Amino acid sequence: MVTSQDVPAELHELRNSIDNIDAAIIHILAERFRCTQRVGALKARYNLPPADPKREEHQIARLRSLAKTAQLDPDFAEKYLAFVVREVIRHHETFRRDAPAGKP
Amino acid sequence: MVTSQDVPAELHELRNSIDNIDAAIIHILAERFRCTQRVGALKARYNLPPADPKREEHQIARLRSLAKTAQLDPDFAEKYLAFVVREVIRHHETFRRDAPAGKP
Repeated sequence: MVTSQDVPAELHELRNSIDNIDAAIIHILAERFRCTQRVGALKARYNLPPADPKREEHQIARLRSLAKTAQLDPDFAEKYLAFVVREVIRHHETFRRDAPAGKP
Repeated sequence: MVTSQDVPAELHELRNSIDNIDAAIIHILAERFRCTQRVGALKARYNLPPADPKREEHQIARLRSLAKTAQLDPDFAEKYLAFVVREVIRHHETFRRDAPAGKP
């Protein structure tokens, strides 16, 4: 049996690439949430609902199409969006609770 | 009441940034899965288990630390990793089922 101490060099190399990719994604997700925090503030100011089904429908279709081009499972691209949007709505609801419209 | 037709220009601009960021993430996730597909093939060849709790523990600690630097919620960084790893394990199990070790 091969133990985790014997993992071949190729596995080590691949894991280094995965770690770099994850670092890039964490940083770009941080930037995405900076954008959606500003969206949340705007939505609260204009009293818009946290979720926007029409916008999400367009995002889903676009990401599914991009995923196909990148040879990524389109279902996974849709799951990614749902995962991120769930977090965004959680942020928006927290923001609205802490700073209701019309309050300073 | 402000309708979705009246969303301010700033919201439109932010959404354009979010769309660019999502396109970048979809493409980099595609590359991440290219890496993990190769990892899956190696693991099947060396008969290593699909999950590796020690490696995941190290990844979690590292991503939580990177998230703090990027001012992203460390809990969300951990959720991101769990989300992606769930998909990776699903891929590995599918690969193993379709191409069992020792079979051509």
